[in-house]
Amino acid sequence: MTPASRTIWIDSDDPTVVVAIEQRLLPFEYVEVPIRTSSEMTQVIADMVVRGAGCIGVSAGYGMYLAALATAHMDVTTADESLRRAGAELEASRPTAVNLTWAVQRQLGAILGIEDGEERIAAAKALAETIADEDVAYCAAIGQHGLGIIEEIHERTGETVNIMTHCNAGWLAFVEHGTATAPMYAAHKRGIPIHVYVSETRPRNQGARLTAWELRQAGVPCTVIADNSAGHLLQHGKVDFVIVGSDRTTVSGDVANKIGTYMKAVVAKENGVPFYAALPSSTLDPLLHDGVAEIPIEERDGTEVTRATGYLNGEHVEPETAAPGSNAANFGFDVTPRRYVTGIISERGICEASEEAILGLYPEFADAK
Amino acid sequence: MTPASRTIWIDSDDPTVVVAIEQRLLPFEYVEVPIRTSSEMTQVIADMVVRGAGCIGVSAGYGMYLAALATAHMDVTTADESLRRAGAELEASRPTAVNLTWAVQRQLGAILGIEDGEERIAAAKALAETIADEDVAYCAAIGQHGLGIIEEIHERTGETVNIMTHCNAGWLAFVEHGTATAPMYAAHKRGIPIHVYVSETRPRNQGARLTAWELRQAGVPCTVIADNSAGHLLQHGKVDFVIVGSDRTTVSGDVANKIGTYMKAVVAKENGVPFYAALPSSTLDPLLHDGVAEIPIEERDGTEVTRATGYLNGEHVEPETAAPGSNAANFGFDVTPRRYVTGIISERGICEASEEAILGLYPEFADAK
Repeated sequence: MTPASRTIWIDSDDPTVVVAIEQRLLPFEYVEVPIRTSSEMTQVIADMVVRGAGCIGVSAGYGMYLAALATAHMDVTTADESLRRAGAELEASRPTAVNLTWAVQRQLGAILGIEDGEERIAAAKALAETIADEDVAYCAAIGQHGLGIIEEIHERTGETVNIMTHCNAGWLAFVEHGTATAPMYAAHKRGIPIHVYVSETRPRNQGARLTAWELRQAGVPCTVIADNSAGHLLQHGKVDFVIVGSDRTTVSGDVANKIGTYMKAVVAKENGVPFYAALPSSTLDPLLHDGVAEIPIEERDGTEVTRATGYLNGEHVEPETAAPGSNAANFGFDVTPRRYVTGIISERGICEASEEAILGLYPEFADAK
Repeated sequence: MTPASRTIWIDSDDPTVVVAIEQRLLPFEYVEVPIRTSSEMTQVIADMVVRGAGCIGVSAGYGMYLAALATAHMDVTTADESLRRAGAELEASRPTAVNLTWAVQRQLGAILGIEDGEERIAAAKALAETIADEDVAYCAAIGQHGLGIIEEIHERTGETVNIMTHCNAGWLAFVEHGTATAPMYAAHKRGIPIHVYVSETRPRNQGARLTAWELRQAGVPCTVIADNSAGHLLQHGKVDFVIVGSDRTTVSGDVANKIGTYMKAVVAKENGVPFYAALPSSTLDPLLHDGVAEIPIEERDGTEVTRATGYLNGEHVEPETAAPGSNAANFGFDVTPRRYVTGIISERGICEASEEAILGLYPEFADAK
């Protein structure tokens, strides 16, 4: 398996095709999926072929480029209508992450009203690439800011720094570096000894499958745990800090992330363990102030809970793991109120999870209020 | 599938054989396992063929009966030595649950020193049956005490009472009724509308497999959730109270139970949701006062975490669910400090999780201090 260095990109041989890594099969199979229309992009986001806040934002950017391609020979009114429709579909593909809306609106702002088809396509392509490149740069900056936290702990203790994460906010969830993982990669590169507790993250096991695989590939020592074990480790002083990604963070500092994050944050606080959310500003929602009340939580099919997805003798299998006929509820995300969040690590630095601190780093969001 | 009404019993055709339900295959396959020696009993407890605090205590009681059978023709000194050895093996089969020690010591107290082989066997058999019968009676009493909590909520709200549980503290974990489930069965019988959120309970899925199956068999409405979803439901007021079993509870009220319980308790308290532990007095450890420091936590094989156990086309399968080569840590239990426990429901009633309150119900434990 020789993975690409990014999770999604424009095919170098055929620039009318976007190629993505099929993340549902990793790390057991490495498959690249060609995507030719914005409707196909909507589908691969909804089906979680691509997933992770940054990655689906970038995917939506490329989806709008594919939508623009289809408007090559349309007059501007028809083209704009078509682009708005494609954007609405992309935005609706998953409800919790705000990066979709952010990327689509950014594209619409740039390309609506362009008269010439070729010019429209070139603008959409350039912006899609910019969004991807920014994601890489922002994740690298997050890594450098988060590195300071790890260095400080290591200097104080002289010991291996034990980090706990949840789900996959790694490079697979973004384009390169990842968010929660970026400080780990930076510390590992700097030679600081770290060890990461990776929660398996039921029901889709993105921790056990993706984060454990990424970290192993990078040579970072890690241990997979059942989600249920997080509390025991936090209670027994086995974790120096918790770091997760985010799918949407209100301007007031409430963090929506993979289901299960909230319990980790509450129990971390109860045990005096710092809890950080690492996120690029594309994940900040300047319009929301009460995450628990306002952020829509995706509910997915219950069969993800009543089955496990795994590999048996090289075959992808999904055996039943619950009593046959069981009802199941399957929430994709939960919201961690800001009072449990020690700090937010963004590309502009680390700040408190409060509206004042976030607007201090991002004064431009004040206008959106 | 026609399950027996108890989880373990002496074979009515051959009283030298104890029969147990193979719980690792439930509910997909129903198999009864014959057990002929105390060493075999030690193995079925260690392998989790039988599991659950009450059930393994009762199993240890029957194990001592099997040990006594083997001493039929021994002189009393040899017999006592053999019984002590068998008892030590049974006690060591799993480290966290105190019911093993309780049952073994109770048997040794009753049968050591009996000169006549037949008399020794008869005494061990009678006590094993008494321990099983007591378990049934205690669980029934717990059901009646817990029923009061459900009735009170229903009278106050007039709505379906939403209950959250973890793992399986059902009849399969005991002999009949169960502990955490006993109040549910009692309320359902009384016609009070209830609904139960069943956490799947990775890594062994005793919630999704066993509790969901038990409750469905009894006609109690329930919904399986990923362990990660518990916090979201507690945060959004979807749960009236949480009730779990226990594998060992200190006389001061600290509750050891299946890994993941602690996080539920902390988050329940944070959201003002009552959290109860239901347990027969055989689960109380009069010698321990600081559960987090003193209760040994079983660590099991990491492959339970890196694989899932399920059924595919009628076949038992264990596919890999984590990145190949992953390290994994697998803690069987965690300890919930008494400050998160609203109350303890035992066969003698409901009390605060404090030494004073527990000794109020069980004054005989004061002598053990």
